[in-house]
Amino acid sequence: MPALDLSAPSVDIARAICDIPSVSDDETVLADLIHAAVDALPHLDVYRDGDTIVARTDLGRAQRVVIAGHIDTVPINANVPTRGIVIDDEPYLWGRGTVDMKSGVAVQLKLAAELVDPRVDLTWMWYDHEEVDSDLNGLTRLARTRPDLFAADFAILGEPSNGTVEGGCNGTLRALVRTKGVRAHSARAWIGENAIHNAAPILARLAAYRPRKVPVDGLVYRESLNAVRISGGVASNVIPDACEVEVNYRFAPSLTAERAEGHVRDVFAGFSVEIVDCAEGARPGLDAPLAQEFVAAVGAEPTPKYGWTDVARFAALGVPAVNYGPGDPHLAHHDEERVPLSQIADVERGLRSWLTAS
Amino acid sequence: MPALDLSAPSVDIARAICDIPSVSDDETVLADLIHAAVDALPHLDVYRDGDTIVARTDLGRAQRVVIAGHIDTVPINANVPTRGIVIDDEPYLWGRGTVDMKSGVAVQLKLAAELVDPRVDLTWMWYDHEEVDSDLNGLTRLARTRPDLFAADFAILGEPSNGTVEGGCNGTLRALVRTKGVRAHSARAWIGENAIHNAAPILARLAAYRPRKVPVDGLVYRESLNAVRISGGVASNVIPDACEVEVNYRFAPSLTAERAEGHVRDVFAGFSVEIVDCAEGARPGLDAPLAQEFVAAVGAEPTPKYGWTDVARFAALGVPAVNYGPGDPHLAHHDEERVPLSQIADVERGLRSWLTAS
Repeated sequence: MPALDLSAPSVDIARAICDIPSVSDDETVLADLIHAAVDALPHLDVYRDGDTIVARTDLGRAQRVVIAGHIDTVPINANVPTRGIVIDDEPYLWGRGTVDMKSGVAVQLKLAAELVDPRVDLTWMWYDHEEVDSDLNGLTRLARTRPDLFAADFAILGEPSNGTVEGGCNGTLRALVRTKGVRAHSARAWIGENAIHNAAPILARLAAYRPRKVPVDGLVYRESLNAVRISGGVASNVIPDACEVEVNYRFAPSLTAERAEGHVRDVFAGFSVEIVDCAEGARPGLDAPLAQEFVAAVGAEPTPKYGWTDVARFAALGVPAVNYGPGDPHLAHHDEERVPLSQIADVERGLRSWLTAS
Repeated sequence: MPALDLSAPSVDIARAICDIPSVSDDETVLADLIHAAVDALPHLDVYRDGDTIVARTDLGRAQRVVIAGHIDTVPINANVPTRGIVIDDEPYLWGRGTVDMKSGVAVQLKLAAELVDPRVDLTWMWYDHEEVDSDLNGLTRLARTRPDLFAADFAILGEPSNGTVEGGCNGTLRALVRTKGVRAHSARAWIGENAIHNAAPILARLAAYRPRKVPVDGLVYRESLNAVRISGGVASNVIPDACEVEVNYRFAPSLTAERAEGHVRDVFAGFSVEIVDCAEGARPGLDAPLAQEFVAAVGAEPTPKYGWTDVARFAALGVPAVNYGPGDPHLAHHDEERVPLSQIADVERGLRSWLTAS
């Protein structure tokens, strides 16, 4: 595996790191390359924890900004290696990770190498296991072992935001909704009770559910409630005694975890509901002075972030945080994930101009 | 593994063979023991195909009867080894296979060893893979390689029938009913289309389905239509693009496979339906002279068989066939599967008296 060349254009860095598969739990090859590349830079202090790498300037500036990005992706689906494609005369980089979020990471790596004299001290973080349970997230681990590294006045997550500033994020909750029944031979079904049939109202409620749109601090957050998995069945001639539906509720940042859980329990009243994972969202965080300066420098109207991102983690630590990265979030996890090359350049320019302004 | 002692009481043989696990596709240990035991009997010609064993008398009798039983079971669920239990002063053998159908096989093995001079020639068949796809069934294989072995005037399957004669059997059809959707990140669910939600009407139709009761040749066959498996989902943060419900339709023996398929397609109109397995039932088969003699000898009122059994295979070959075995079919595949010891003795007595009558 050749070393990463951080003096190359960001698009080339993006392509190089997308072509190194790093599906969650398999990030080590990429983490090793990033580690080696930033460890060679004398202006950065580098710390590593598992496959999470932190690189800091220590210039004695009055303020410090964290700029972070995860290096894992969702599973590949015949979309690696990347391809350069053109749609309506616009050049794109296509493939897994181009949107979520290796193009953002590429810009960060390039600027980490280039900006030896930024106007604020910088803490770069590249981390593992973002696309899976939050318990496994590299930042969860880091917050436990090195909470001091999160100290900052402002944080920017490079999550895809079409090159605009996306404020805050929705919360996310996963729950298992279960039915029971009684096993029997399917030839004498009336002796048993079919747990899959008992799940009919669960799917009916999901299909009929009308998600809310919730205004929070001037931005409107769109919610959703979806089944993401269903399973049930013992054998092809047995009436099943159990069925399980995993649901994912994305909720506005004005809701606490407790209220989100209450809502899910209300929707599935009468069924067994087990909450397996819940992470609160983050309010937009655009009232912080550094955030306002940053938005002004980037020059686009802030919009709400729908997906849960680690801005919530910074918000919970009292560090205002926004999302700012190349790529259309609608295409994250999509098999046709692709990013316009112009957005990679825009985000690089936006970050550079703000970080080098005097 | 000690050899099978076919001179032992049938209950002891039943217990011995239930304590040898033989879940479908894992029958070889038990088949080897049966093979060795009957191969030692000079009055039987033994033929083996895979884990199916055929043992025949060749006494030049005017008539021949096939007596058959499968040696596989559905998966074990903490119910092996067997236990002797007592309910309301009645002794039972409890555990996987005691009902479906190793107690019937035990009686057959005992009589195969004992009856050196039966009134009809006998073809004993013990076969594998009955509890799975009919393509895998040992009798499907045998009918292809040795159709001559099925020649007979009457056939008795030892499937559980509470020690009464159960005529014919329902047919069985399995189908996959599928929905599609469009994958998207679950944080922006409105970009995708949820295939699990799209399956809501499938479960609603199953839950609302009212099965028919169909009279055929004087017996009433009760039908059923059930989901036996459901699956869907990609990852916990992805809107799923596919959901699949496996359904099992048990249909009266007056329906052809074509009509059964048409009914299932009608019920799930508007959805993709793939028929994966279909076996027609068998009309009661009680008009054959040997069947009438047998029913008279056993002395109980015949009832309909609900479950599909291999009697249908014999009926299709022109050999009238009935079910006759110990055990309550309602308890087949049940985790609390158990057989009254008295029924094992009754079935042994019934078969012996008819086969040795002069």
